[in-house]
Amino acid sequence: MTEHVAGNGLLNRRGLLKATGAGLAGGVLMPVMAPVSAAEDWMTTSGAPMDEYGAPSKHARLKRVNIGAHPYGSGAGSSSTPLEKLNGTITPNSLHFERHHSGIPDIDPARHTLTIYGETNKKLQFSYEDLLAYPMETHTYFLECSGNSYSNVIFPEAADKTVGELNGLVSCSEWTGVPLHYLLDEAGLNSNANWIVGEGADAAGLTRSIPMKIATKNVMIALFQNGEPLRPAQGYPMRLFVPGSEGNVSVKWLQNIKVQKTAAYTKDETSKYSDLHVDGKADMFSLEMGVKSLITSPSGKMKLNRKGVYEVSGLAWSGAGGINQVEVSADGGNSWATAALQSEHRNLSLMRFRIPWRWEGQPAVLQSRATDDKGNVQPTRAAALAKYSKSNIYHYNGTQSWQVTQAGVVKNVYA
Amino acid sequence: MTEHVAGNGLLNRRGLLKATGAGLAGGVLMPVMAPVSAAEDWMTTSGAPMDEYGAPSKHARLKRVNIGAHPYGSGAGSSSTPLEKLNGTITPNSLHFERHHSGIPDIDPARHTLTIYGETNKKLQFSYEDLLAYPMETHTYFLECSGNSYSNVIFPEAADKTVGELNGLVSCSEWTGVPLHYLLDEAGLNSNANWIVGEGADAAGLTRSIPMKIATKNVMIALFQNGEPLRPAQGYPMRLFVPGSEGNVSVKWLQNIKVQKTAAYTKDETSKYSDLHVDGKADMFSLEMGVKSLITSPSGKMKLNRKGVYEVSGLAWSGAGGINQVEVSADGGNSWATAALQSEHRNLSLMRFRIPWRWEGQPAVLQSRATDDKGNVQPTRAAALAKYSKSNIYHYNGTQSWQVTQAGVVKNVYA
Repeated sequence: MTEHVAGNGLLNRRGLLKATGAGLAGGVLMPVMAPVSAAEDWMTTSGAPMDEYGAPSKHARLKRVNIGAHPYGSGAGSSSTPLEKLNGTITPNSLHFERHHSGIPDIDPARHTLTIYGETNKKLQFSYEDLLAYPMETHTYFLECSGNSYSNVIFPEAADKTVGELNGLVSCSEWTGVPLHYLLDEAGLNSNANWIVGEGADAAGLTRSIPMKIATKNVMIALFQNGEPLRPAQGYPMRLFVPGSEGNVSVKWLQNIKVQKTAAYTKDETSKYSDLHVDGKADMFSLEMGVKSLITSPSGKMKLNRKGVYEVSGLAWSGAGGINQVEVSADGGNSWATAALQSEHRNLSLMRFRIPWRWEGQPAVLQSRATDDKGNVQPTRAAALAKYSKSNIYHYNGTQSWQVTQAGVVKNVYA
Repeated sequence: MTEHVAGNGLLNRRGLLKATGAGLAGGVLMPVMAPVSAAEDWMTTSGAPMDEYGAPSKHARLKRVNIGAHPYGSGAGSSSTPLEKLNGTITPNSLHFERHHSGIPDIDPARHTLTIYGETNKKLQFSYEDLLAYPMETHTYFLECSGNSYSNVIFPEAADKTVGELNGLVSCSEWTGVPLHYLLDEAGLNSNANWIVGEGADAAGLTRSIPMKIATKNVMIALFQNGEPLRPAQGYPMRLFVPGSEGNVSVKWLQNIKVQKTAAYTKDETSKYSDLHVDGKADMFSLEMGVKSLITSPSGKMKLNRKGVYEVSGLAWSGAGGINQVEVSADGGNSWATAALQSEHRNLSLMRFRIPWRWEGQPAVLQSRATDDKGNVQPTRAAALAKYSKSNIYHYNGTQSWQVTQAGVVKNVYA
């Protein structure tokens, strides 16, 4: 027998799956008696030949969403991962979110170098080939734009959008590269080497300051993403990767690391990427991304076409470390049940959560709430908004609520 | 000070990296004093705009290798992952190896069903949409073709090929899908339900038998690969995924699972994918892939362009479980050092190993040897070959040896 673990249809996964005899039948889906499929075209004709570099099915209709062009210049803007089309935790490279400040440069690695200089004993310059011979590490990390989920901050009423359109400036990859501390050790840090300043080789020359404590912890010069060399849109041939920090500091097309006594206070960390409070003061260098979660299915603009059991599934992450718990509510936060955590990556990575839910046509509001391994709990929308000035769009990590109507239509709501 | 851990230049990674003062300088690479790069085109002109579905850099030249067309029919054959171009453990979907028996079908998921019948209480049929509502799991698994590395079996002299051309019928992905035992429980197994027989919806109608003990352990109906829906070349809209077993039983374009008392003995498991021994007898249903490892860098057709320290890096895996240890030799097996294991995925996944190696122009033969967590040790080439008849090309897991000449040229050798 299945067991209810919270209001409005949330079920115990273990109970559901261990049920003997009846199995999942009945509530879960309506299996029909049917003959073996008649032969379709694809069984009577030989299929397509192999190609050098594969592509998805035309039936899957996978593409980045919210592709924007910023009024300030060609190629500036962002594009978002269609989280509603994906499952698991890895984001395919072709669907990783993007944020560019002056388009995507096409860099020839043979003409690109990384220079480390400033408050160091030596000035060092590395070619791409040099770095490929260095000791590397491989880790799976999320990356989130500081401005992710801004629609739910700036619009007075909840916009009818998909989860990717609303929250798709977050993605997750297996990153491989050279730990930065090896290179800093080799350059030799002076006693007042308190910050590094990373500069990109794009036309925006994007430049960000990072405290040395973070720079020497787990930052890498990333060379590979999900196995293959970085894509141009992700910084080919090399980028900084700063795990758990706002995406903007993981400087793409990295060409210079200047070691300094103080931060640089560049345009990219003063006019943008600082967080205004109600009292007029602003946080600067507030790099760590907060604990956050999203239900990706069912989610905005989906429709439930039949009554029965659905898997409620989503993603959780925290810039402070790993995810310890994700709770799900089907009644707008009145009662909560603990979801199953299904990812193998536990630190600074996306975590997939899952819980079964029986929908019999009743109205519902689906929400999730993550807790990280430092004890941080994802705030409600109201609490997250109250933290900053109304004009601030950065570091929003409030609850995402999905309303399910009696017709099965799923919509973004503020709850 | 760096510490030698085996003959011919193998170094202690910890010692190398913890060296104070000098850092990695000197031996590792030759850093040069240089000014900050002069502005290249990509810094003076805005870059390309965003697109819906991204692509790699034209400079990276990523493509599958050994793209073959089988004489028996259009679209039959295999293509291999270019392991020498990759790092980390995940294989991007566009570069996953392929093996097709009658090309790649273009299946409309709305017209595709999965039927479970035979020795069951009920005959069940599932649409793609039905399965998307089921409880899913996410795991990172390797997949290896039973015929991987056949060049090193059939050629009397070692072919001068890349590691991908020689051994690239192995890849690794994060797979998400519905555990098969949920569906079998729902159908209800009769007392003589000893085998499942999976049939694909391709024109070859590829059909394989799997013992129930394996089918109910960790087999899934895979729907997503590295986050996105399966590619057509990998079985869209659904495939069986049988972790640790030869790739051929992970039947793509899965349309039928017939539950039987005995195996089906189809053409796909009798004329092929059975393993002939010297005495004329053959193994059938020898599904588990053996413990194996490969050095991917330096590897075949590469050239070492300077003396100094290189990272020797490669992949290890076992169909029996996880990898416990990988040893590396630089002197053709006379002495061995333990490599660092760098992957987060420990069970039935590719494992990345790494060890620093100082090359001062001396001739060398690089080898790796994996041990899995069941105590299985990868055999030498001679031992692996002695196990089967000379005409058998399946389940070869002997040592891969790379010769490094004094000129720095890296070549496949039999050692």
